[in-house]
Amino acid sequence: MKILVVGANGQIGKHLVSLIQDSDSLEARALIRKQEQASFFENLGAETVMADLEQDIEPIAKAAEGVDAIVFTAGSGGHTGKDKTIMVDLDGAVKTIEAAKVAGVKRFIMISSFDTTREAIQAAPSSFAPYVAAKHYADEWLRRANLDYTIIHPGLLTNNKGTGQVTAAVEVDRDEVPREDVASVIVASLENEKAIGKEFQVVTGATPIKEAVDSI
Amino acid sequence: MKILVVGANGQIGKHLVSLIQDSDSLEARALIRKQEQASFFENLGAETVMADLEQDIEPIAKAAEGVDAIVFTAGSGGHTGKDKTIMVDLDGAVKTIEAAKVAGVKRFIMISSFDTTREAIQAAPSSFAPYVAAKHYADEWLRRANLDYTIIHPGLLTNNKGTGQVTAAVEVDRDEVPREDVASVIVASLENEKAIGKEFQVVTGATPIKEAVDSI
Repeated sequence: MKILVVGANGQIGKHLVSLIQDSDSLEARALIRKQEQASFFENLGAETVMADLEQDIEPIAKAAEGVDAIVFTAGSGGHTGKDKTIMVDLDGAVKTIEAAKVAGVKRFIMISSFDTTREAIQAAPSSFAPYVAAKHYADEWLRRANLDYTIIHPGLLTNNKGTGQVTAAVEVDRDEVPREDVASVIVASLENEKAIGKEFQVVTGATPIKEAVDSI
Repeated sequence: MKILVVGANGQIGKHLVSLIQDSDSLEARALIRKQEQASFFENLGAETVMADLEQDIEPIAKAAEGVDAIVFTAGSGGHTGKDKTIMVDLDGAVKTIEAAKVAGVKRFIMISSFDTTREAIQAAPSSFAPYVAAKHYADEWLRRANLDYTIIHPGLLTNNKGTGQVTAAVEVDRDEVPREDVASVIVASLENEKAIGKEFQVVTGATPIKEAVDSI
């Protein structure tokens, strides 16, 4: 099963490509923006392909040709310029969803924000609300896209070492979660068809990741 | 016929409320953000109602109670902070559309940007692209909202005196258009059921406005 990782050069993305390459059944194709980002992934034995999410749908669709699933884990983060928020977190995500359709890739995993509901937009501090809104609309676009989607809503991301254990459910108490564990949750979701058509929040916890994803 | 004007205190909004108040068949309710904006509209004999598009849907729905149509002409413009672009031009528009549904108001007129297609997002200079993207998603939300919509795509807005004559069609050559004429196009669209379910570009031209709208 070949997986296009969009946002491969991000912190979750790098963990994810490593885990995929370590797995027996999965192979990664890393979507990168610059040639200089390629060596990290080549050293892991992963394919790389170049495309810029701020460009048109066509190159993204071409990058997705022949893969079995797409993971969108690109993000401007909540602290870049707000122009990037709309152009990457919203429009880049939507273009990737549309590219999936063009390339005929049904399986799509979105790494969202912990809470992207209308209520979360309204409750967010004004500096963060645009990011929540962008993720809200990206998630909504995916729900309506007629793809086999999974939307993962991780808690506050940390660089702590993964524990391999999480709490995952439609709603969980807000908490931290290591990026490495989020990457494992993505792999478990790719390997479990029960994750299709679901979305869930995930934080650090006490349930082994495969089991947590299986129980959603 | 009572019309809720969202963005009444903007330049098109002020022209629009004036025109509505001058008309025999229409009455305006001006949605404003601050009490100090009220006197302009009260002097025209228009109702005012306060709500902030960055707040929740509920107050907007309350402001829309009992009206026959909503005109969305609020806008951060292309030159405000990009946080306002997503929070007003996109999220404010979507909340107004959702408020229309809550209040049971079917008729909705959106003042969009001249070209909000995917191609226009990609072709826009990077400083302007976030605004085009925000309007793209707002328009798309309205198309899918099951309302009696009209989407008006005006050319480059000027403060020139209106001529009462325009060119309007699904696609026209890019040109200027006085804000006063855009306001007249909105009134003509409110008064003509043939505008329902349509969208069109409009620039200054040689066809009387009522006739131009009728021929869309």
